Amino acid sequence: MKIQQQIKLSSYRSKDFIRDYQKLVKETVIPYQYSVLNDMAPGAEKSHVVKNFENAAGVLRGEGAGDGFYGQVFQDSDAAKWIEAAAYSLISFPDKGLEEMCDGLIDKIADAQDTDGYLNTYFTIKDKEKRFTNLYEAHELYCAGHMMEAACAYYEATGKDKLLNVMIKNAEHIYKVFILDGHEGFPGHPEVELALLRMYQLTGNKHCLELAKHFIDVRGADPDYYNKETKSRSWTVWGNNPADNVYQQSDVPVRMMKDAKGHAVRAVYLYTAMAQLCSETDDKELFEACKRLFKSIKDKQMYITGGIGSTSIGEAFSVDYDLPGDTAYSETCASVGLMFFASRMLENEVSSEYADVMEKAFYNTVLAGMALDGKSFFYVNPLEVVPGISGVSQTHKHIITQRPGWYACACCPPNAARLISSFGKYAYGENENTAFCHMFASGEVNFKNGVSLVCETNYPYDFKIRYKINRGGELAVRIPGWSRSYELKVNGVVLSDEPKSGYLFFKVKEGDDVTLTLDDTPRLVYPSTSIPSLTGKVCLMRGPLVYCFEGVDNDGDVLSVALKRDGEMRVSRLDDGALKGVDKITVGAVRKRDGGSLYSDVPPEETEITAVAVPYYIWGNRGENQMRVWMDEIR
Amino acid sequence: MKIQQQIKLSSYRSKDFIRDYQKLVKETVIPYQYSVLNDMAPGAEKSHVVKNFENAAGVLRGEGAGDGFYGQVFQDSDAAKWIEAAAYSLISFPDKGLEEMCDGLIDKIADAQDTDGYLNTYFTIKDKEKRFTNLYEAHELYCAGHMMEAACAYYEATGKDKLLNVMIKNAEHIYKVFILDGHEGFPGHPEVELALLRMYQLTGNKHCLELAKHFIDVRGADPDYYNKETKSRSWTVWGNNPADNVYQQSDVPVRMMKDAKGHAVRAVYLYTAMAQLCSETDDKELFEACKRLFKSIKDKQMYITGGIGSTSIGEAFSVDYDLPGDTAYSETCASVGLMFFASRMLENEVSSEYADVMEKAFYNTVLAGMALDGKSFFYVNPLEVVPGISGVSQTHKHIITQRPGWYACACCPPNAARLISSFGKYAYGENENTAFCHMFASGEVNFKNGVSLVCETNYPYDFKIRYKINRGGELAVRIPGWSRSYELKVNGVVLSDEPKSGYLFFKVKEGDDVTLTLDDTPRLVYPSTSIPSLTGKVCLMRGPLVYCFEGVDNDGDVLSVALKRDGEMRVSRLDDGALKGVDKITVGAVRKRDGGSLYSDVPPEETEITAVAVPYYIWGNRGENQMRVWMDEIR
Repeated sequence: MKIQQQIKLSSYRSKDFIRDYQKLVKETVIPYQYSVLNDMAPGAEKSHVVKNFENAAGVLRGEGAGDGFYGQVFQDSDAAKWIEAAAYSLISFPDKGLEEMCDGLIDKIADAQDTDGYLNTYFTIKDKEKRFTNLYEAHELYCAGHMMEAACAYYEATGKDKLLNVMIKNAEHIYKVFILDGHEGFPGHPEVELALLRMYQLTGNKHCLELAKHFIDVRGADPDYYNKETKSRSWTVWGNNPADNVYQQSDVPVRMMKDAKGHAVRAVYLYTAMAQLCSETDDKELFEACKRLFKSIKDKQMYITGGIGSTSIGEAFSVDYDLPGDTAYSETCASVGLMFFASRMLENEVSSEYADVMEKAFYNTVLAGMALDGKSFFYVNPLEVVPGISGVSQTHKHIITQRPGWYACACCPPNAARLISSFGKYAYGENENTAFCHMFASGEVNFKNGVSLVCETNYPYDFKIRYKINRGGELAVRIPGWSRSYELKVNGVVLSDEPKSGYLFFKVKEGDDVTLTLDDTPRLVYPSTSIPSLTGKVCLMRGPLVYCFEGVDNDGDVLSVALKRDGEMRVSRLDDGALKGVDKITVGAVRKRDGGSLYSDVPPEETEITAVAVPYYIWGNRGENQMRVWMDEIR
Repeated sequence: MKIQQQIKLSSYRSKDFIRDYQKLVKETVIPYQYSVLNDMAPGAEKSHVVKNFENAAGVLRGEGAGDGFYGQVFQDSDAAKWIEAAAYSLISFPDKGLEEMCDGLIDKIADAQDTDGYLNTYFTIKDKEKRFTNLYEAHELYCAGHMMEAACAYYEATGKDKLLNVMIKNAEHIYKVFILDGHEGFPGHPEVELALLRMYQLTGNKHCLELAKHFIDVRGADPDYYNKETKSRSWTVWGNNPADNVYQQSDVPVRMMKDAKGHAVRAVYLYTAMAQLCSETDDKELFEACKRLFKSIKDKQMYITGGIGSTSIGEAFSVDYDLPGDTAYSETCASVGLMFFASRMLENEVSSEYADVMEKAFYNTVLAGMALDGKSFFYVNPLEVVPGISGVSQTHKHIITQRPGWYACACCPPNAARLISSFGKYAYGENENTAFCHMFASGEVNFKNGVSLVCETNYPYDFKIRYKINRGGELAVRIPGWSRSYELKVNGVVLSDEPKSGYLFFKVKEGDDVTLTLDDTPRLVYPSTSIPSLTGKVCLMRGPLVYCFEGVDNDGDVLSVALKRDGEMRVSRLDDGALKGVDKITVGAVRKRDGGSLYSDVPPEETEITAVAVPYYIWGNRGENQMRVWMDEIR
């Protein structure tokens, strides 16, 4: 049974930092993506997403396929992710026009559903006979999953159930195929599992639960399944090698999994569903597997930025301690998925380590994925960039030094958008008795359990968090693992209780004034000596924010800068320019100057300097330049 | 005109360190490779090299192809490299049996030559019509080049000219095809150019000079040539992409080349031939290109070990300052080729920087290529190995932690063998007036110009080099760039002359006793701050030797060791075990112990230790363990 769960979307009304980001998504990302979906964005590559739905509807009506299908096999999911982000956005920013756009698109989606419940434009337009014959590559269930998530979100946001009914019908169709008719296989790209569990949670439809459990249980039971599937048909999408069963997490049954492996986004989407299933079924063996996988990520395979999937080869987890900064893959979507996983782990076990990871992933990698103007996006989030090598060297081709605009394969931008727009669900949780504050997000929260509060803070640039209690009950406030000290006062009186599993539990009543003060001093963080690429390095952090050093603030060269272990650190607020409102940190450092040779037995000369750091998530917003998270240290 | 040139093979009789290595090649590498070529080596993959020649002869006699062709398209070159190494070996170690083996193999090679002079078993056995239609991939001219080198070496070693005549006839055939008949194109893998120039040097055959110059001149004149060639035929060997004209150095004409680029072995073989051609033709423009390319390597793209070609993707040069230690490719063959290039540069311009590079490449990467027992070999020479990541992580798959036995693609072992066996040619040079001592190699040298000397030294473990003069003349002794001090005495009297271009020139007479004393203190070497992967690191060297730290000497973990800048360094000779005769160095250091977390704001605890380093070239001879060249530094 769930120990706590995400709050309802509508329970939280954001303010300040988070609201500014949500506004950016609402005003820039969502309208731009809508124009992309409709092929109206000047300069953008053709998307054809809406056209695909129209053409599929034409096929079903017997009118023909129009100009056919265009795009990737998973093109439908772009529409789904857009609806989901738009739904979340409608809660914070009601907008009739946007709601009408959603309704219009949903009508087209509904028209593209076959009478038996099947819904996928690629197969409907191209070849009905190929349905469910290429689970390995064709993203058929993945697209269904995203549409189910969109359906849930749109229902929660607007109360409108047209899309939800479409997707319940679709789920029943999939149930019939895989459960009643016994069709073999499981999704090549996990997603439908977590989506079915969301539908179950929202509607109580038991088939959704059963189907999700089925897909999770059969995964990896036959490690050779995709090989067999591939041999049984005459077509492929990309011709990927189905023998690599680690890539798509089918090398062992999920309950036997030990280390996080394979394609990072697929992995965390699967683990998310596994954690959800535990909380619905009290499956202890499955939960032990989830804990092992979470630990494998957090203790051995996660960047300091909350990035995961360190290798570009297969966009995948590598091996323990292989966390190079300069060739990091660290996909934005993978950190979004890591937040999903951590949030669902909290349903099984309240422990601040899950929220610590959510917070780290959000404030560093997820936010870094989007430019400050909301118009360009990183998929790949390196921890070091050196123009001339990054993006140029064969091993660094994937390291792009500047955020590009919308991609044809638009996974990360809408994923970041839906996460930001639904931030409240991750920040707050609840159960019958307790209101959980996992992350610090200003705004108003009305918990279903009766507690109501207003949080005021300029977090992550202010480390005083104030809760004004409008209706009382029990609060559980997380004490972040990174905070070396804290003080929580209720109406001015210090709470002396010890945290349990990283949370302070205490009762409040209407009118109470709760103030949490966290450590606001910048700190140097050291990597494990087991990480070969990071020995001797140090990283500057403050609160949950990883800081980085960019050339633009440091005379164009950060490679030659070494931070002094006991160097003076000063925090100051920037009050104009692109980074307005951001705290920069200056640190005592030295700059090394070599004599110009590649190697020399004369140590580089050193000059004392003050190095300037800015939060990692805003890097690359001021032109192409060097950037480094892990700096050399000097005493 | 040549300023100096390599001594004749027979001028040098080695002793001590070099002779020990030559003996290992003679007693272990050459017999083993002979058994491989003849498919008599137990456990080794089938080579079929000798069989290919027999079968090609059968085809030419009209008797059929026997069991056909087997192996790589460049399989013939294995025979050539073996003969070349055996020839050099015969000079130092006369051996009737070995000479008979060579003669027997040469007879088979001669039988496989077509009446028109053509010689290549792949095309003779498989399809005569395809001759010279796939210069891009098929290594046809590459194989010819290696056989020409073998022919020169065997003639110089034994005075026997059968193979030389075969290869002159072969060169005349190629001359007819490409010069007289105007066949288009140039070798995909450079090699024949440098070989033709060796044949010209040995025989004075002008067609060889003209043909070499032709291949060098037409290269890159049409950057699209290989694309066109590929389109003009219906077959490929591996289906490589001919559009990548940087890979095989055909993006620009050679005289316009600026940076060393593409496949590293191909590059340095080409540059070697370019440098040879300069010295035969006084082509100033070409020499300027050679100087630029050498500088590009030495100043921007060379590992401290003299390794080149930093990326495994294309076994290629990367971009300036991209010199990661843990994913280095640094192929043994590339360092052999770099020695060829540097040696030929010395024919155009006497400057110690060329010999400095030769020495660095030889004592570190070339020697590291072979195990101390001569039975296993590295192709790839990383500067850091961490079991668990090296060879396992997707980006580190090519990093093998232990030298494997003979490979199917046997390029590096015989390349190292021929280099070691002919070391004297690189160590000593001469012109009409002067005897050049480029490297320090004990043994007797009888220069053509009359000078005769005996060099005594235990270099690279002793830094006193003594020359006993048997016949006088002018000596030019290199003062290595790495030596922070030196003293040269003639009969006990210090020579006060300043070096010119890094060489001390002075006259000696019979009976003179010359002693050069170089700096024998270990030193810490710092990388340029422009190398992102090496900032904050330091490398321990002594003389030309790069030292490394292995787990076996350092409690199994070198990642957590940081060297103290002013730590005490002690040199001591190992007197038993696998490394007998090797100087190890101990250095004051600290060992860091983290608290077990992946990241922590508590710096690791530090304990004073004495770290142990051994020469890089002997790493991996005592089992699998961590190895690191670039260490963290602490003050």
